[in-house]
Amino acid sequence: MDEQRLRELLKQVAAGEIDCEAALGQLRGLPFEDLGFAKVDHHRALRQGFPEVIFCPGKTAEQVSEIVRAMRGRARVILGTHADAEAYAAVQAVAPEAIYHEAARIVQVGEPESYKPTCGTVLVVSAGTSDMPVAEEARVTVAAAGCPVASLYDVGVAGLHRLLEHREMLERAAVIIVVAGMEGALPSVVGGLVSAPVIAVPTSVGYGASFGGISALLAMLNSCASGVVVVNIDNGFGAGYFAAVLAKHWRTDKPD
Amino acid sequence: MDEQRLRELLKQVAAGEIDCEAALGQLRGLPFEDLGFAKVDHHRALRQGFPEVIFCPGKTAEQVSEIVRAMRGRARVILGTHADAEAYAAVQAVAPEAIYHEAARIVQVGEPESYKPTCGTVLVVSAGTSDMPVAEEARVTVAAAGCPVASLYDVGVAGLHRLLEHREMLERAAVIIVVAGMEGALPSVVGGLVSAPVIAVPTSVGYGASFGGISALLAMLNSCASGVVVVNIDNGFGAGYFAAVLAKHWRTDKPD
Amino acid sequence: MDEQRLRELLKQVAAGEIDCEAALGQLRGLPFEDLGFAKVDHHRALRQGFPEVIFCPGKTAEQVSEIVRAMRGRARVILGTHADAEAYAAVQAVAPEAIYHEAARIVQVGEPESYKPTCGTVLVVSAGTSDMPVAEEARVTVAAAGCPVASLYDVGVAGLHRLLEHREMLERAAVIIVVAGMEGALPSVVGGLVSAPVIAVPTSVGYGASFGGISALLAMLNSCASGVVVVNIDNGFGAGYFAAVLAKHWRTDKPD
Amino acid sequence: MDEQRLRELLKQVAAGEIDCEAALGQLRGLPFEDLGFAKVDHHRALRQGFPEVIFCPGKTAEQVSEIVRAMRGRARVILGTHADAEAYAAVQAVAPEAIYHEAARIVQVGEPESYKPTCGTVLVVSAGTSDMPVAEEARVTVAAAGCPVASLYDVGVAGLHRLLEHREMLERAAVIIVVAGMEGALPSVVGGLVSAPVIAVPTSVGYGASFGGISALLAMLNSCASGVVVVNIDNGFGAGYFAAVLAKHWRTDKPD
Amino acid sequence: MDEQRLRELLKQVAAGEIDCEAALGQLRGLPFEDLGFAKVDHHRALRQGFPEVIFCPGKTAEQVSEIVRAMRGRARVILGTHADAEAYAAVQAVAPEAIYHEAARIVQVGEPESYKPTCGTVLVVSAGTSDMPVAEEARVTVAAAGCPVASLYDVGVAGLHRLLEHREMLERAAVIIVVAGMEGALPSVVGGLVSAPVIAVPTSVGYGASFGGISALLAMLNSCASGVVVVNIDNGFGAGYFAAVLAKHWRTDKPD
Amino acid sequence: MDEQRLRELLKQVAAGEIDCEAALGQLRGLPFEDLGFAKVDHHRALRQGFPEVIFCPGKTAEQVSEIVRAMRGRARVILGTHADAEAYAAVQAVAPEAIYHEAARIVQVGEPESYKPTCGTVLVVSAGTSDMPVAEEARVTVAAAGCPVASLYDVGVAGLHRLLEHREMLERAAVIIVVAGMEGALPSVVGGLVSAPVIAVPTSVGYGASFGGISALLAMLNSCASGVVVVNIDNGFGAGYFAAVLAKHWRTDKPD
Amino acid sequence: MDEQRLRELLKQVAAGEIDCEAALGQLRGLPFEDLGFAKVDHHRALRQGFPEVIFCPGKTAEQVSEIVRAMRGRARVILGTHADAEAYAAVQAVAPEAIYHEAARIVQVGEPESYKPTCGTVLVVSAGTSDMPVAEEARVTVAAAGCPVASLYDVGVAGLHRLLEHREMLERAAVIIVVAGMEGALPSVVGGLVSAPVIAVPTSVGYGASFGGISALLAMLNSCASGVVVVNIDNGFGAGYFAAVLAKHWRTDKPD
Amino acid sequence: MDEQRLRELLKQVAAGEIDCEAALGQLRGLPFEDLGFAKVDHHRALRQGFPEVIFCPGKTAEQVSEIVRAMRGRARVILGTHADAEAYAAVQAVAPEAIYHEAARIVQVGEPESYKPTCGTVLVVSAGTSDMPVAEEARVTVAAAGCPVASLYDVGVAGLHRLLEHREMLERAAVIIVVAGMEGALPSVVGGLVSAPVIAVPTSVGYGASFGGISALLAMLNSCASGVVVVNIDNGFGAGYFAAVLAKHWRTDKPD
Repeated sequence: MDEQRLRELLKQVAAGEIDCEAALGQLRGLPFEDLGFAKVDHHRALRQGFPEVIFCPGKTAEQVSEIVRAMRGRARVILGTHADAEAYAAVQAVAPEAIYHEAARIVQVGEPESYKPTCGTVLVVSAGTSDMPVAEEARVTVAAAGCPVASLYDVGVAGLHRLLEHREMLERAAVIIVVAGMEGALPSVVGGLVSAPVIAVPTSVGYGASFGGISALLAMLNSCASGVVVVNIDNGFGAGYFAAVLAKHWRTDKPD
Repeated sequence: MDEQRLRELLKQVAAGEIDCEAALGQLRGLPFEDLGFAKVDHHRALRQGFPEVIFCPGKTAEQVSEIVRAMRGRARVILGTHADAEAYAAVQAVAPEAIYHEAARIVQVGEPESYKPTCGTVLVVSAGTSDMPVAEEARVTVAAAGCPVASLYDVGVAGLHRLLEHREMLERAAVIIVVAGMEGALPSVVGGLVSAPVIAVPTSVGYGASFGGISALLAMLNSCASGVVVVNIDNGFGAGYFAAVLAKHWRTDKPD
Repeated sequence: MDEQRLRELLKQVAAGEIDCEAALGQLRGLPFEDLGFAKVDHHRALRQGFPEVIFCPGKTAEQVSEIVRAMRGRARVILGTHADAEAYAAVQAVAPEAIYHEAARIVQVGEPESYKPTCGTVLVVSAGTSDMPVAEEARVTVAAAGCPVASLYDVGVAGLHRLLEHREMLERAAVIIVVAGMEGALPSVVGGLVSAPVIAVPTSVGYGASFGGISALLAMLNSCASGVVVVNIDNGFGAGYFAAVLAKHWRTDKPD
Repeated sequence: MDEQRLRELLKQVAAGEIDCEAALGQLRGLPFEDLGFAKVDHHRALRQGFPEVIFCPGKTAEQVSEIVRAMRGRARVILGTHADAEAYAAVQAVAPEAIYHEAARIVQVGEPESYKPTCGTVLVVSAGTSDMPVAEEARVTVAAAGCPVASLYDVGVAGLHRLLEHREMLERAAVIIVVAGMEGALPSVVGGLVSAPVIAVPTSVGYGASFGGISALLAMLNSCASGVVVVNIDNGFGAGYFAAVLAKHWRTDKPD
Repeated sequence: MDEQRLRELLKQVAAGEIDCEAALGQLRGLPFEDLGFAKVDHHRALRQGFPEVIFCPGKTAEQVSEIVRAMRGRARVILGTHADAEAYAAVQAVAPEAIYHEAARIVQVGEPESYKPTCGTVLVVSAGTSDMPVAEEARVTVAAAGCPVASLYDVGVAGLHRLLEHREMLERAAVIIVVAGMEGALPSVVGGLVSAPVIAVPTSVGYGASFGGISALLAMLNSCASGVVVVNIDNGFGAGYFAAVLAKHWRTDKPD
Repeated sequence: MDEQRLRELLKQVAAGEIDCEAALGQLRGLPFEDLGFAKVDHHRALRQGFPEVIFCPGKTAEQVSEIVRAMRGRARVILGTHADAEAYAAVQAVAPEAIYHEAARIVQVGEPESYKPTCGTVLVVSAGTSDMPVAEEARVTVAAAGCPVASLYDVGVAGLHRLLEHREMLERAAVIIVVAGMEGALPSVVGGLVSAPVIAVPTSVGYGASFGGISALLAMLNSCASGVVVVNIDNGFGAGYFAAVLAKHWRTDKPD
Repeated sequence: MDEQRLRELLKQVAAGEIDCEAALGQLRGLPFEDLGFAKVDHHRALRQGFPEVIFCPGKTAEQVSEIVRAMRGRARVILGTHADAEAYAAVQAVAPEAIYHEAARIVQVGEPESYKPTCGTVLVVSAGTSDMPVAEEARVTVAAAGCPVASLYDVGVAGLHRLLEHREMLERAAVIIVVAGMEGALPSVVGGLVSAPVIAVPTSVGYGASFGGISALLAMLNSCASGVVVVNIDNGFGAGYFAAVLAKHWRTDKPD
Repeated sequence: MDEQRLRELLKQVAAGEIDCEAALGQLRGLPFEDLGFAKVDHHRALRQGFPEVIFCPGKTAEQVSEIVRAMRGRARVILGTHADAEAYAAVQAVAPEAIYHEAARIVQVGEPESYKPTCGTVLVVSAGTSDMPVAEEARVTVAAAGCPVASLYDVGVAGLHRLLEHREMLERAAVIIVVAGMEGALPSVVGGLVSAPVIAVPTSVGYGASFGGISALLAMLNSCASGVVVVNIDNGFGAGYFAAVLAKHWRTDKPD
């Protein structure tokens, strides 16, 4: 039952052509999803400014570019994650403004609006150079959502002084994404140094008993530092998305 | 917005106290769930004859009996699963007609309607005597749903002749529940002997590398016999419920 | 001992050429499997209308086509699952009527009989576009068994309104197959909305902690909705086969 | 080197008793941790208003009460998590103002300051009644940190209408904690309905293949909904702490 | 169809009361299991001398003693494994000749026949004193099956000289059962020293990463020594049974 | 200390050039391994007739052929397992008599002696056609050790009649190797039908929750049939070797 | 062949009663283990000063005290690990000098010799107070082996300043044992700060996804810091033993 | 605050341009990391003689050679581990003195200083030929750190005599690295034979239930021999590094 039908029903009631109980009966059977859908629209509106995302693996370059073509009118920014050069080429054919973040393996179409200066800064921290693709995926996602973002890479716990040297940077951030593979200890150390919320991203970096990221994932879930939450292994996009939600709502004046 | 408020709104429209667009606005914001709830009621009506279920572990005997008291008006049959003698005593205090299926660890309040003769028969098969609590939980659940049910216990694959002796019984059943722990091979063997759908229930019976039922679960998921589906370890109730749904809709005349 | 030999033995008894006790002795040693085999034939007859299936992985295209050649006289419909284009080409050489369901990766030879109008409808629901190969494998299997089948794809739980919009479709189905990877939540949600039996198929779609489908499998086994059963990861065929068994026996008149 | 020694060194420089290079040498060897400690103090000050926490398991009631006695001067609020009645009695002996949140298994000493009205509201949602201890642990933690908090319990995905009825409540929350065991599907569904950040807490509720919460944990890590992060199994405190950090920094005016 | 009915059928044929084809029809439907059962009897006869076994866990002392009472006429030796003192007392009440092997946790009723002198000797080797219950379960099982059996305990690989001192004993054995927990290395070492078949029994002895016997189980499955097979964790009975089968068929004259 | 030095020492004693205590001192420090090595030789002699084995994976074709060249003088039969065509070609270059068992992926050099007629027969049974490489590896290994061996393939539990038809064959075997993937149920069924020892070989055949053979492995370890032991996943060689050891020592006269 | 027999053989050679070749033949068959045993004695002598150890779990108090009684003459120091008060009481009855390290759950009988001043110092570091039993087990083991040992507890990575304050202590140690549960990050951080070898001990401290110490174990095995090795979960004794071996051989003069 | 700024501050104090308290204030805020960095430098100096290491997987040949170019001035020895021939060629272009240890897959640039004769010898022991790459990685690492190193390969436990023959070699070593895959039993056996510390390296050698090295890893963690520690699967470098640390500090005079 769409809005038009609802309007006609009410007119019939107003005109006395149908009595209240009969109208009530029709309304009771009203498929809620149409109304619900309106709510969903409103709800999606709240998320404006967040990029639409295409997870590229398992899709051909053509499929990716077709989805981009279809989305391009509706979405300000479109991200294709885990995209290779071939997917980028296909997207460029339909969206010449597309750029390719190679380290992050992301194709980006469109630019975000600039945000209020009150928006908090997101800091992406990574343990080793091998974690960089995931870290970059997080960083590009935050940037594509229109939030200020900085990065601090290769500051793993085995060389603590590298991290401690940048303590001021850590303390300035509103939200910190910490990306680490192997033993996954960095989020705990960062979480103990700062009061900002920490989003931990385990990576599949490592070998042997790293079991494709399970070691890092378990370590992060068991973090002894309060204020640490975890996303899936290698899920740089998810961490970036979550961080951007927080950053957009961040009150930069300190709580009392 | 409950029905009363909806009726009043329609009366206001009929009385011309509110115009159609304003009413439309109110209706558009109408919490669909109230209407949806009506659907749910209808939907639950489709399930009439199925018992309400209380999963007793983690609830005190008092909590169980209070839930029974609250449900007793609404539900024809109530089952308390994984119930101990204490829970039974507490239920009896509020529902003297309650009976206790000791082997199945189920407290039952109320009796199901009898069903159409067209309803198919469910057969519960178990591998060993230690699987009996789970098998009985399935059997009592089917019976409490008002379906005819038979049982064939202790016919594990290591003594195949015990199973083969009852092949006629297997072939008469519309739906077969097969309960087994340890290596969980029985559903595959039964599934190879019959054309009826087989619902496999792994049990936590075993020791060492049975890992609390994982061995049996994996074996059943990997069954080489077509027509075998699986429920959670020790989930006799779930198998019984699913079997009863099938049995109630079973066409006893053979498909052509 | 085949039927011929049995007949001769009885003739000898009738002719008094062999006395009863001696005949009894011979019969006692009679290999039961020959008689049993007759039963098996009868039993297979019950399954008439179900396609024969060839699981193609690990077989060369030639092996697949030879099996098809051998089966073609006996079986009305033959399915080659997980088949690639090469296997299809080889099958076409021996069975020109073969068709290739590309999305489902199934080669089909022959068409099913049409069924009684009383046969229930199967609905295949999937969470994401990446789950489509498994969903299509299920759908094609149901169709090849001669049952009416519909599909509803890309209605994952993260966008619940997409599912709720098609609630009527869900409620019309006699049996529902729900295919989902990642967190595997869709069967629980569908199982809570309908009274039809739900067959859950976990897929290996996902990355990181999805562990090749284990996450989805575990979620489905632990479904809090009654009326949900599970098959192996990516086992679209198994779900389709089971659903077809149910649909063929489905009583479309509601139980009272 | 404490402050006193540093002051004396500087005086010696001022008095010309030691030249600059020699003083520089001494300063270079200065144990950074004493200065660093001051930073830590400052840093902890930023966290004012957050309760101190004692994880009670593995500690005797006496040990818990002694820690409370020692902390009581320094901390405005102290929480003892996973505390039993005996621990509560021991704490009461040293802190008569202590209260016991029984469902949450938390002993609380002291009350938080009230916060700015700009602080966002936290909503704690749980799937089943058995998840309540963990949900309550989260709720009490948020409240003890001085943030407004509401709860919505027993709205698991198998009865979706119960959740949908409270959609407005979901949409008003700044941050949502979703607590679920078994298949752990609720965070994905909630995450798909709202734009607020969702903190998912798997619980060890379930049996068989729930494996003490692993099923729920994996499901949540694999959530197809963006904006969902995860904490350890049964870690209600961690979720509450993280949510309170977010709520205190939440800008209630919508981002543009 | 039992033998009596079969005899009557044949008499009817002989008497001409029923013609051959009609008799054939009746025979074709003959439940093979009755004939099959005869084979099974014969087959069990081959196993004469092997004890009947009752796995006691999950059975009450009364249930155990009732099974013993029922079996006592039929079986020469009955073993109750994993039996406690209470079970023993209950068995003694119905079978005063029962003895209790405390270290092996086995109640034994009856004595085996003595065997041919050609029967090979079984040697039970264990790594540590904590493995003794499982080793003794194996040893008592072999003895109860009437085979000669010796034991060599506490000869773990960390003190290799203890094992090497008894090399002659190892070489005299026809079959060797090796029981070990923790790292489970002993079967590989023994398998490298002897030409006899080695049956490895992992035990749940250990802590931490022994994971209830998984470490030992995996080590044994991966043994680099040829001639090593494995049974379930703590399955002393299974190893003893298998060893006795081998020992009874062992040719003591060396193969050429 | 080699034999030469030992001889000289004894000569010195005999010649009175060194007294007994001094000789004793030297002997006490004697490296036992040289003597031990002699025992090892003796011990290996007991194993005569068993093939030497080269596990080919991870070795180049040249390495394999060089090992064959080195062994060829010493060993009557040499097997290269998991060998591809390239390895076969390289071996042929140094041992023209080499043959290639393609299904078993085994290169064989040399022929075993024929054995005593008393040697028991080994039967290799497999569940599905995909299990054939592992089954053939077992069969060829038994044959290469000079033991009579038969095979019975594609008799999985889902079509029980195929197995039961060959019951006589099963009962004639001294030792049975059962090869199965997926749910791994076949060894339990065979173990229940026969009194011969059963060696179960899990294979990595399957998909999804078969987890590369873990399902089959666990099922076999948990077999409810007595007389079943297990080797590593896909370890056809190990099963064949163990079976040959048993067959060579088998007493074909029945135990009394 | 014991020494006496060897002596007699040599006398026979000296007396010409047996010729060299015959003596050689006898010697070749000489059981090496008797000679080997002498080597073992010598080898154990190298380990003098290390305590004998009794792992108490699974032994009765009486068994423990009997082992102590038997060892007491031979060993300078005896440790009973994982000992409770009852075991201590029983040991005291046979060894009144016994002392009980309650936190370490160790009964100690006897005192070690004091060592050379060149022996390096062992430092035991632990992350949380709950790790103390394991840390103390390590510390007492080192002390009982006669090595200087210090401890630094409750310096987990979430409060990095606590660790950094004691950096000098860390740098003075020859060997460092790091004990941690939960995310097990401390060994990586310590390993990055010092040049001393680090022995990591995972503990079973934690809940939920700590899985009884697996998380910590995996983190430690994947440590990105060089110079970190790992022992079993909760194996404080093993770490202490290994550390003492290193400390006793430590050159305190720095390598050049 | 760098040294220059610190010097100027002190000059201002000396010149009376700033008073002590103001200077103190500035110093208190002094970023410790700059001072800490000095300590780190000192600390790294202690490690002089240890090679810098580049983990090559995931880096292009160009990236590896660029890192080598950058390090070459600073480090005496540089190792590129897991390096292929292409990486070696690229390194040679920037460092012509580079050599390639093919079996170890290590590119080495530069030679270590020779060490004091007091340095202990490291012995690398491996179980099978397939373990050689990992064993060689360990051996080359030790050598590159300037320590004497020997090797003893292919002495797995299934042929114990091969190991026992070299017992003298084992006993001469200060530190022993034991490399093994499959059942991982060798470290326990070696640990029982010697008093030297044993560093166990599990390898991913094996198939089926070796699970990529998990079996060997678990076996080593559960070693019943005291004095055994473990590193990650296939981590030859880590074991070599740790062994070199020990060897450099080894006191070759026996402890008393």
